[in-house]
Amino acid sequence: MPAPHTLDGWYVLHDFRAIRRQAWKNTDPHTAAAVLRDFSAFAQGEMEAQRQRLGSFGQFVVAGTKADLLFVYMRPTIGELNDVKARFEATRLADFTERAYSYVSVVELGGYLAKPGVDIEQDEALQLRLKPPVPEMRYVCFYPMNKRRTHPDNWYMLDEDERRKHLIAHGQIGRQFAGKVKQIISGSVGLDDWEWGVTLYADDPIHFKKLIYEMRFDESSARFAEFGPFYVGEQVDVEGLTKWMMTLHG
Amino acid sequence: MPAPHTLDGWYVLHDFRAIRRQAWKNTDPHTAAAVLRDFSAFAQGEMEAQRQRLGSFGQFVVAGTKADLLFVYMRPTIGELNDVKARFEATRLADFTERAYSYVSVVELGGYLAKPGVDIEQDEALQLRLKPPVPEMRYVCFYPMNKRRTHPDNWYMLDEDERRKHLIAHGQIGRQFAGKVKQIISGSVGLDDWEWGVTLYADDPIHFKKLIYEMRFDESSARFAEFGPFYVGEQVDVEGLTKWMMTLHG
Amino acid sequence: MPAPHTLDGWYVLHDFRAIRRQAWKNTDPHTAAAVLRDFSAFAQGEMEAQRQRLGSFGQFVVAGTKADLLFVYMRPTIGELNDVKARFEATRLADFTERAYSYVSVVELGGYLAKPGVDIEQDEALQLRLKPPVPEMRYVCFYPMNKRRTHPDNWYMLDEDERRKHLIAHGQIGRQFAGKVKQIISGSVGLDDWEWGVTLYADDPIHFKKLIYEMRFDESSARFAEFGPFYVGEQVDVEGLTKWMMTLHG
Amino acid sequence: MPAPHTLDGWYVLHDFRAIRRQAWKNTDPHTAAAVLRDFSAFAQGEMEAQRQRLGSFGQFVVAGTKADLLFVYMRPTIGELNDVKARFEATRLADFTERAYSYVSVVELGGYLAKPGVDIEQDEALQLRLKPPVPEMRYVCFYPMNKRRTHPDNWYMLDEDERRKHLIAHGQIGRQFAGKVKQIISGSVGLDDWEWGVTLYADDPIHFKKLIYEMRFDESSARFAEFGPFYVGEQVDVEGLTKWMMTLHG
Amino acid sequence: MPAPHTLDGWYVLHDFRAIRRQAWKNTDPHTAAAVLRDFSAFAQGEMEAQRQRLGSFGQFVVAGTKADLLFVYMRPTIGELNDVKARFEATRLADFTERAYSYVSVVELGGYLAKPGVDIEQDEALQLRLKPPVPEMRYVCFYPMNKRRTHPDNWYMLDEDERRKHLIAHGQIGRQFAGKVKQIISGSVGLDDWEWGVTLYADDPIHFKKLIYEMRFDESSARFAEFGPFYVGEQVDVEGLTKWMMTLHG
Repeated sequence: MPAPHTLDGWYVLHDFRAIRRQAWKNTDPHTAAAVLRDFSAFAQGEMEAQRQRLGSFGQFVVAGTKADLLFVYMRPTIGELNDVKARFEATRLADFTERAYSYVSVVELGGYLAKPGVDIEQDEALQLRLKPPVPEMRYVCFYPMNKRRTHPDNWYMLDEDERRKHLIAHGQIGRQFAGKVKQIISGSVGLDDWEWGVTLYADDPIHFKKLIYEMRFDESSARFAEFGPFYVGEQVDVEGLTKWMMTLHG
Repeated sequence: MPAPHTLDGWYVLHDFRAIRRQAWKNTDPHTAAAVLRDFSAFAQGEMEAQRQRLGSFGQFVVAGTKADLLFVYMRPTIGELNDVKARFEATRLADFTERAYSYVSVVELGGYLAKPGVDIEQDEALQLRLKPPVPEMRYVCFYPMNKRRTHPDNWYMLDEDERRKHLIAHGQIGRQFAGKVKQIISGSVGLDDWEWGVTLYADDPIHFKKLIYEMRFDESSARFAEFGPFYVGEQVDVEGLTKWMMTLHG
Repeated sequence: MPAPHTLDGWYVLHDFRAIRRQAWKNTDPHTAAAVLRDFSAFAQGEMEAQRQRLGSFGQFVVAGTKADLLFVYMRPTIGELNDVKARFEATRLADFTERAYSYVSVVELGGYLAKPGVDIEQDEALQLRLKPPVPEMRYVCFYPMNKRRTHPDNWYMLDEDERRKHLIAHGQIGRQFAGKVKQIISGSVGLDDWEWGVTLYADDPIHFKKLIYEMRFDESSARFAEFGPFYVGEQVDVEGLTKWMMTLHG
Repeated sequence: MPAPHTLDGWYVLHDFRAIRRQAWKNTDPHTAAAVLRDFSAFAQGEMEAQRQRLGSFGQFVVAGTKADLLFVYMRPTIGELNDVKARFEATRLADFTERAYSYVSVVELGGYLAKPGVDIEQDEALQLRLKPPVPEMRYVCFYPMNKRRTHPDNWYMLDEDERRKHLIAHGQIGRQFAGKVKQIISGSVGLDDWEWGVTLYADDPIHFKKLIYEMRFDESSARFAEFGPFYVGEQVDVEGLTKWMMTLHG
Repeated sequence: MPAPHTLDGWYVLHDFRAIRRQAWKNTDPHTAAAVLRDFSAFAQGEMEAQRQRLGSFGQFVVAGTKADLLFVYMRPTIGELNDVKARFEATRLADFTERAYSYVSVVELGGYLAKPGVDIEQDEALQLRLKPPVPEMRYVCFYPMNKRRTHPDNWYMLDEDERRKHLIAHGQIGRQFAGKVKQIISGSVGLDDWEWGVTLYADDPIHFKKLIYEMRFDESSARFAEFGPFYVGEQVDVEGLTKWMMTLHG
């Protein structure tokens, strides 16, 4: 049975970090401010890359203590993502962080979106979905997932019609949240430990809960979805990140 | 099948900490006392927020060595919870702690509690349940849980009548412990790694064991519940926390 | 289906520690000896509490490198166990240990042991089983366990007669080892990550293996038991602990 | 049922490392450059061994934060792999790394490849497949895997015809990617925690995703494959490694 | 159903260690040599104990980075194993190691080997198998395992005849490798986290792979075996250990 055709866009790195709190608090306020100013130069470079459509960038303060910060980067190649990783590590702020979790994937669209005869490279709407900027919404939710492969609920043993039926029902739930939740699916088969990464954006995080809970009663999730860890965070700009870091600094 | 309607209240952060014992014991008694005095200012601020109905706050000494302290915070938004996290980390006491576990969720009530025609925002009883202060009971028990989604015990594939039947039976057990155990359910689908967090409060912790054991023989738990780690602790006020920390200090 | 009635006695803390070997070896022999003398004061206090029937206490050197020492404490309340934890941490010996594992539970007897009309509080034999001193036997074995709840081997979906039949067969195996192995069952539903803790004591540890292997072929274990980590250790008095610590010190 | 006959070649060590970022950034640029020069001597020795067909060697920058670098070594014996490990650790660069993951296996070919009457030792094509140099392709993908052994999808309970049918279908997918993806299978039964290691090489990493996704719909993967962690990286030469390390150094 | 009768010999400690590489490399060569000389005194003491049939001892360099060294000790009692552990930790070499993994078990033979009327204590062949010296073969393979207890493949629910049939078939595979692989089975029910430890010795490690792969197609493994981590290493004498440690020292 052939795999569904996919369209693949930019590679994505979700980089979760925990603050090394004692080291950070032991810096004097002037140094702390300087560290954050230096970092804002890095962040502005990334945002400039996003404006120029060379990549994407978002910064988030993560809830709970599994992590403190999330940085989302997108680039056309894995080599460029490796370069971004090195440049982040080279910042002084990076010295005050530990790696908490990361995820490598590539933006993925269903192949059926490519209309016959259309040049994907020239279809601006498709290009924007394959190489999306980070949405300007206040909250983010990230989780990786698999389709189950254990008897008798084996997604990969379903015939194509059944899978399509499930996906249509699943997609209808997503559409009920149109305008409230923006969803970016990235594929990670062969790239990281789960099959997909799901990144949701919303101005009100209660919509994450309502959307995912609604989907859980849909047969395609109820029987076939396996979920990894969930992370939720609030998007910040340079000023917001600085403010939060200085609150923690005390 | 549509998901059950829920009422969602304040966001909750359960923040479990382990004491960095050697660092703590290496402080001289005067410094240790000062650290605890400073922390009591933070704690009193949180308690004042609770009195003003801006949020909730509780402090607990945790049994066993998985953690030593638990702080429970509730706030109207995740952004505010992130701010509380930063302000806790800014305290001097935080320097003597390591992160042991955390859980992010939102207080959740069954939607059927919203009577037709009633304005939820004006219903004081509902508001108190959606934005509950931390109960003044001596012991706490926290655990996260899922409803199972594996064949043939797939909660999300049950029809609505079956689920309701299970929930009614489940609720009756809870009511047998009315007055002995106070239960706050918070939903965490899309917010953290399990679907719900359960926080129980009791003056006698044997009721935690008896209530949960009773429920385990109920079909909705027996067949459908999956449990994460369990934590039990004793609620303390500023004085109780200080006393325990000074005992450990030696 | 109502849960079996249980009798619940003292709360139990199993506290497993690993020695911080380099720090310990870096102390000069005089300091090391002083640290152990100080600790023996703590241990003697705990043993005195056991003699006065205020609690229980045992010390063990653990085999393998998952842990080095095990301390077993029992007390009437979780609050008191928290106090013991803080007092142990306050000892100088504690500075040379890391937390390796812990378990919180409460001594549990089958409710059928309470004969009708008998005042449990006045039944000395029952009281001794609910508040047992640590047996004076040379070796200890500890493991936590669950009853399985997955189809088709779901303990909690069995009817009462079936469960009783299993427990009787299970108990008969235990009785074959009467005199060789002393078993203390403690319940931990709602208190820690498994449903029960099992602590076995024997003068010859081969009986642990033989007893548990025998039980594994009993249907109640074969189909329904799930086991956590196993720890085995040798009981030591103050002198034995000192000797082992000084051997390690070199 | 006899196990399929295999041909076994060189032993393989996949050695994943994370950079100790703060230590590395704290070195002055001259020292950093010297460390990398010293390492290039090690790397060139390994490449020379590859040229002389004494072993194989590859260097990669890994995406995400699970690891930063991957070194692949092959040697005729495990003793020699142990020697390479020690020599790597002896480099100054090794001091700036932590162990992130490793995998021990041996290059494995299906026994049917050995034509009757042919001396395997003299068959150059087979020898090159059993003792392969690291392909000169830009990206690498590594993951370990098992064949499932749980009812009703138990690979090892299939009869030989069924297994052969599955393997033929599986192999056909691989051949669709001929020229795009080069695959080296190494067996690890008895050597490491999974049954096989799979190392894929490609100039475009999207082929990793497409190949593995295609295979997932093949019955032999859909029903019988269990996967460990996935790592993806970019191959670098001495110059590329130096450049990336100096970017991170800042 | 009664458990199979077993004969139990010496207790075994598998002690896996990782080298603290930076600390080790920071010692000057004279100190490093002295540390290794001191350790060889410990090792020679252990080998002397083996010669005197008081216990057993083996040293191994482990492949991959899960561990670097493996020490295997056998002794008549767990108390003596605890003493060996403390004496190892007291060596200077131990300061340059971290604990990577350990396993506690007891050498186990099938009870059917005890012929009726024979005094086991006087049967030299049996005694040698119950208290075996570490075989003088070049490579070692260790892994722990369980017999599966999940429906429908529950080893402990099979009747005795079925189990015997499986074990005979299983044993025949082992005999095909007679002379190539020497196998020591040790039981760990009640002693450590799995039910058995398997230690294989061979001069060519490819036989580990071939033997275990062959067994995997045998129904008793295919349906009933669950495996823990696998470790493979090369046996070294004092000189070999010294050489490897000095290679790593650089």
